Amino acid sequence: MDMVGNDLLEVHPMNGREAPSSYSQNSLYQKRAVDAVKERIYEAISNEFDIKNKIFDPSTPFRVADLGCFIGPITLFAAENIIGAVESKYNAKQQELPEFQVLFSDHFHNDFNALFKSLPPSGNYFAAGVPGSFHNRLFPKSTINFVHTSNALNWLSKVPEEIKDRNSPAWNKDRIYCSGDNKEVAGAYYAQFKSDINDFLNARAQEIAEGGLLCIIIDGLPNGVKLCETGLGMLQDLLGSCLKDLAKEGVIDQERVESINFPTYIPTIGELEDLIEQNNNFCILSLGALHTLPLLASKETIAAIVGAVAEGVMKEHFGDEIIKKLFDLFLNKLPGIRHSLEDEKYQKNIEICIMLKLKSK
Amino acid sequence: MDMVGNDLLEVHPMNGREAPSSYSQNSLYQKRAVDAVKERIYEAISNEFDIKNKIFDPSTPFRVADLGCFIGPITLFAAENIIGAVESKYNAKQQELPEFQVLFSDHFHNDFNALFKSLPPSGNYFAAGVPGSFHNRLFPKSTINFVHTSNALNWLSKVPEEIKDRNSPAWNKDRIYCSGDNKEVAGAYYAQFKSDINDFLNARAQEIAEGGLLCIIIDGLPNGVKLCETGLGMLQDLLGSCLKDLAKEGVIDQERVESINFPTYIPTIGELEDLIEQNNNFCILSLGALHTLPLLASKETIAAIVGAVAEGVMKEHFGDEIIKKLFDLFLNKLPGIRHSLEDEKYQKNIEICIMLKLKSK
Repeated sequence: MDMVGNDLLEVHPMNGREAPSSYSQNSLYQKRAVDAVKERIYEAISNEFDIKNKIFDPSTPFRVADLGCFIGPITLFAAENIIGAVESKYNAKQQELPEFQVLFSDHFHNDFNALFKSLPPSGNYFAAGVPGSFHNRLFPKSTINFVHTSNALNWLSKVPEEIKDRNSPAWNKDRIYCSGDNKEVAGAYYAQFKSDINDFLNARAQEIAEGGLLCIIIDGLPNGVKLCETGLGMLQDLLGSCLKDLAKEGVIDQERVESINFPTYIPTIGELEDLIEQNNNFCILSLGALHTLPLLASKETIAAIVGAVAEGVMKEHFGDEIIKKLFDLFLNKLPGIRHSLEDEKYQKNIEICIMLKLKSK
Repeated sequence: MDMVGNDLLEVHPMNGREAPSSYSQNSLYQKRAVDAVKERIYEAISNEFDIKNKIFDPSTPFRVADLGCFIGPITLFAAENIIGAVESKYNAKQQELPEFQVLFSDHFHNDFNALFKSLPPSGNYFAAGVPGSFHNRLFPKSTINFVHTSNALNWLSKVPEEIKDRNSPAWNKDRIYCSGDNKEVAGAYYAQFKSDINDFLNARAQEIAEGGLLCIIIDGLPNGVKLCETGLGMLQDLLGSCLKDLAKEGVIDQERVESINFPTYIPTIGELEDLIEQNNNFCILSLGALHTLPLLASKETIAAIVGAVAEGVMKEHFGDEIIKKLFDLFLNKLPGIRHSLEDEKYQKNIEICIMLKLKSK
């Protein structure tokens, strides 16, 4: 049993903790997602939670877990929405409220001190921080009533090995992400995503209590669309081209550029549906696009969105020194693809919200 | 309800996080206490836990909480001892083991990041960090099976107001701690300790599950002994005299010296017994001295023990600058009381171990 394992291999900070402005910029965009999903949370809790079930005995706490919580404030908004929805349900039935506990979880390297300091001074729940990878077990069996995870499941536990192997047909030499236009590369990325999603769903199926819900917010694609055909793909290609420029200038090593790959995967709606059905632990209550990603936002917002994904990975691979140069170059080159970004046909990146209910054990 | 309140008024770091050597020195001494109590934990769990009780259904996790955990390693040893004792009991009865969860709790300002990094890479329990004051509720009702707290309950939630009031008969002008030789001062300190212990026990009584245990390790005194008649009292008087020296030299302000008081209380065995009985939530399974405090240890160990209590308080009151000067002076003056410290009649400070069982709810 490896329950408190500190697996640093899996660590890809969303972005440097030193970049609060970039994070807060990106948080605004994430907040939009959390707000958009609020209604679905209320609906699911209102329709699906059986208040007569023994887990809703007020003597048993109602436990919420947010996975990939980072340091706030998004995780706090999400927790408030979920607790608010449960309180509404109890109040509507004039039932005594249970006590609430919120378990905020993220990797060991997350700044839990900062998270704890951001907790509301007078909250209506008991808070706890849980360090670890959500691809493994994090909590005891059948103890969580509602799991929420936002903008975290696109992160893979690792870059698939074949992608980095010069002798493999899946070697991703020219691109830094899973563009979708190379079958072998896409296959290797998908296999890793499938394995990770299975690990995630299996762990949660054990941890979620009878009748519990799982809400996943994840970046995705409409069926049949490749990432390279979207604005987000274009932005990653632009970042890749900046790396090539820096290699040509001799600032970074060409081989290092060829070996960098994002440990992220952007699934289609159909892929997600298939994987959840194959896993077979959860019923799908709803699955659909929340909205398209705001890639028509200001230059700064775009940089924040890309930076949130790219900064940590770039630092890990190339070191801290090149970050400023790389993102300055990126911002300089951004107007060159502005016209395409504004073209409706590339505005296909969506945020997907999936509401799942644990099947009876 | 104020469950996630970040009450900074209550914060008195045991000692600066910048002083790892002092802490680890002091940890050795605390480790001795944890080891000494191991046998009592095994005994209590073996005799008192009813394995047939529904809380010992293996489908329900066994939850351990350590309160005042600091950043390790003492908290990890304590958790291991408790889990080891429970495992022994299950193994002896050839019962399936439950899953374990350990909730490490300390003030909001504690370095939980450091604690999480010190977790064993492959533990046999799920870990969580819980920020907050143990004078308030920390966990949902009836969810903890074993609470452990070591070297933490001597800390009061605040210095009693009268002690600091020049117009009160309880003004503690000449001393920096509750020496016991001034009735008004001792009364005010005792009232605060009583209130804090009550808050602590009431909160735990709600959180501990049916049949659960509470193990308290706390510095104490034999009945009838005043703190000023002990080695620990002498050391605090010595520190007080150093502050007066620094005031005479003009390094610190005389009035500031008169207004400093430790937010700590060293109870007698009888006081503890009375307070627990008056509180009436717990049965006393055992209550007694573990051993005397090692005040005959090396100069460095003594400085570490005093520093662990004093450093944070001194920094808060006088600022960081005087710390080195103060403790250098303390070490210089220490040989002057060495002879008295070695006198058996002053070796009366004890460490008390109390094992309590929650009365039926």
